Amino acid sequence: MRKYVAEFIGTMVLVIFGCGSAVAANTLVGKLGVEVPLGFTTLLIAFAFGLVIVAMAYSIGNISGCHINPAVSLGVFISGKMNGKDFVGYLVAQFIGGIAGAAILVALFGSNESLGTNGYGDASALGISMGIAFLAEVILTFVFVIAVLGVTSKVENGSVAGLVIGLTLTLVHILGIPFTGTSVNPARSFGPALLAGGQPLSQVWVFILAPLVGAAIAALVYKFLSAEEEKQA
Amino acid sequence: MRKYVAEFIGTMVLVIFGCGSAVAANTLVGKLGVEVPLGFTTLLIAFAFGLVIVAMAYSIGNISGCHINPAVSLGVFISGKMNGKDFVGYLVAQFIGGIAGAAILVALFGSNESLGTNGYGDASALGISMGIAFLAEVILTFVFVIAVLGVTSKVENGSVAGLVIGLTLTLVHILGIPFTGTSVNPARSFGPALLAGGQPLSQVWVFILAPLVGAAIAALVYKFLSAEEEKQA
Amino acid sequence: MRKYVAEFIGTMVLVIFGCGSAVAANTLVGKLGVEVPLGFTTLLIAFAFGLVIVAMAYSIGNISGCHINPAVSLGVFISGKMNGKDFVGYLVAQFIGGIAGAAILVALFGSNESLGTNGYGDASALGISMGIAFLAEVILTFVFVIAVLGVTSKVENGSVAGLVIGLTLTLVHILGIPFTGTSVNPARSFGPALLAGGQPLSQVWVFILAPLVGAAIAALVYKFLSAEEEKQA
Amino acid sequence: MRKYVAEFIGTMVLVIFGCGSAVAANTLVGKLGVEVPLGFTTLLIAFAFGLVIVAMAYSIGNISGCHINPAVSLGVFISGKMNGKDFVGYLVAQFIGGIAGAAILVALFGSNESLGTNGYGDASALGISMGIAFLAEVILTFVFVIAVLGVTSKVENGSVAGLVIGLTLTLVHILGIPFTGTSVNPARSFGPALLAGGQPLSQVWVFILAPLVGAAIAALVYKFLSAEEEKQA
Repeated sequence: MRKYVAEFIGTMVLVIFGCGSAVAANTLVGKLGVEVPLGFTTLLIAFAFGLVIVAMAYSIGNISGCHINPAVSLGVFISGKMNGKDFVGYLVAQFIGGIAGAAILVALFGSNESLGTNGYGDASALGISMGIAFLAEVILTFVFVIAVLGVTSKVENGSVAGLVIGLTLTLVHILGIPFTGTSVNPARSFGPALLAGGQPLSQVWVFILAPLVGAAIAALVYKFLSAEEEKQA
Repeated sequence: MRKYVAEFIGTMVLVIFGCGSAVAANTLVGKLGVEVPLGFTTLLIAFAFGLVIVAMAYSIGNISGCHINPAVSLGVFISGKMNGKDFVGYLVAQFIGGIAGAAILVALFGSNESLGTNGYGDASALGISMGIAFLAEVILTFVFVIAVLGVTSKVENGSVAGLVIGLTLTLVHILGIPFTGTSVNPARSFGPALLAGGQPLSQVWVFILAPLVGAAIAALVYKFLSAEEEKQA
Repeated sequence: MRKYVAEFIGTMVLVIFGCGSAVAANTLVGKLGVEVPLGFTTLLIAFAFGLVIVAMAYSIGNISGCHINPAVSLGVFISGKMNGKDFVGYLVAQFIGGIAGAAILVALFGSNESLGTNGYGDASALGISMGIAFLAEVILTFVFVIAVLGVTSKVENGSVAGLVIGLTLTLVHILGIPFTGTSVNPARSFGPALLAGGQPLSQVWVFILAPLVGAAIAALVYKFLSAEEEKQA
Repeated sequence: MRKYVAEFIGTMVLVIFGCGSAVAANTLVGKLGVEVPLGFTTLLIAFAFGLVIVAMAYSIGNISGCHINPAVSLGVFISGKMNGKDFVGYLVAQFIGGIAGAAILVALFGSNESLGTNGYGDASALGISMGIAFLAEVILTFVFVIAVLGVTSKVENGSVAGLVIGLTLTLVHILGIPFTGTSVNPARSFGPALLAGGQPLSQVWVFILAPLVGAAIAALVYKFLSAEEEKQA
């Protein structure tokens, strides 16, 4: 039971720190009234998302494995390392955690106008289409989940796995922020979209479905690659 | 006895490098004579605070455990891993260290005008209220202290614990700098406020009390979560 | 066989995330309509290249060793840790992976105008000559490959090797981006140049040849230095 | 003998990548003809210096211990972990390496105008005096060397020591660049100053003497702190 509490807390913290850093940076940039080079807020936000994974991995990793992401849980489930009951329990805890995190952001910023939501079209810095957004999220999640599965498959990597997974989330944000803001995590996207409403909510299905597709591909590719490895051993 | 000296040195170094990097960055930005987004210096200062923890963790970690933060000591004390006498000794050493660090900053910059103090209202980049400042510091310290308790609870994490704790402090600065400048550490806030005087000193109680509340919540939540873990083992 | 698939995937992902982050950053900077210091995007792009190595090292490292770079494979081959058949197989997989990655970038950005290609003359931020570009790439690759050979030579470094190699690639990008955009990897340069055509393609030989020269020097210097080490043991 | 070659190569690479990144960033900023927020180039250069230590620590660490800094060698010598003959041999190799690195920068940039030299007065971004420059370098080197001595004193930290030392060098650059450009390393300062001549050369004695003083204090403080630790064991 308490591992579900851990997933709830972890996903809530992820939304507060990851999405919250994006909202804070955008609010300050908005106050300046000038165009700001995007490289800087991209790197700042990318480190926020990556380092909150580091913090949570070493806090609740012992308890729940620190998925705090339905796409990661799907990848672990497809890899056969998680039963169906836990898979459903984790997903429920993660989605509720994402909503709770978004609610705390409303309290902290006193507004639900900008909650670090994901989007395409005029909600994308690059102005990409829905199709490209879907493709981008599949690719981003594929890389994130294959790294999660890879680094956790070797027991010797135990002490560095949280660092590697966090830095990989930083990576997918560096590329993905200009496209979609980077979801790769349906619970991280749904909570803020639900409380923001409007366009973010109408577009959120892309950021629920595409990460799950990317995670499934990652699990299947990793199974194929590591099967060969076993044969050689 | 010498572990108190280690806590004194560590907290002094934390204030010199963390607060000092903030003062240096703000001084240079002031010289430019143009409005500069606070986001630029956020990442720089966030890494300064995080990496000084890395440096100190591997220098004095063997000797005192490198708390260099009364909120961390409170979390460790509540978790039952520290006796009352050491708790008091650490706090005294940390507060004196924070004041000594602030004094060295006055020497280095030749002024006590800006010492990296924390604040709310017009001292906050986002202009937040006292209540939001308190809430923000509770949340920031909760995440920092739960990561400290989590990573140090597994002996296998010994060699990476300093990196994880440092990067978590970077994280809480990325989110917290636009709100309060980020305290999460009463000794880091009190020293600079004492030497700066005025508004920083009149607001400093928030940055003493809120981190202690956040640390206490972290210790209780971690106890709850890890108890379950033990039951399962 | 499947280790070649791993090298193909890894090199494709390297080009998508490394070169793609450069394209995205430059596209956004272009939209601003103002001159922006290249320094802003340097750190962003340098972390993209470094962290994609981290992600791939822990995903496919078990399977192929995660060279995803003909210069690294040459260094390993000269060091006698790889046979000739695998050397050729890796190179073919890496070059095809680089082309596939560039093709996906064309799909994501809807254009082959800018694909993160390398260059000198007016394609260099510093406007360097061909000779200096060659010299710079030899030096950059020398440092990258000697770090790869050094960190992988000690079994105790197993769990951190991917982090060290990734951060070293970040380093060589920090220095190299103003010179050539940083290749140090013939497959990373050839794929984008092939699909971009024009000047990038006519200059690409420098970014194939110079990294191989740098890698060969690194392998010979490392052999010399570590031979002494063995004698002392 | 070959460990001296390793120290020569390592110090040369440190100057090429650390000082070279500073020269490249400053050259690009100069081309823009506008004021650039200093936070950005500070972080870029701080990571260059830190990550070149990471790269070299895992390349030549096995061979020479990768001091590549006379102040580090002095700290190790005072700690009794190095004999007098090696101390002198390391220093000679490091100074020659620093000069060779500066010579390669002259070749790469086609000028000796700016070689990443250190300075005070009008050569300091903060315009500090000679006395403050001396004090700042003592403090910066104290923290760097105490971290080196601390992390290398525990055999369990073997695999992460290079990361910790590199990130600590990043830290001291974040604080120190606005003051003096950050030396903490006599060989890194002397090589560029010798080839630049003029004011950098006339001021260089501060950046030779102050780091040695800081390192000596670090060695004595660390001896005091760790003696207590032994008594408790």
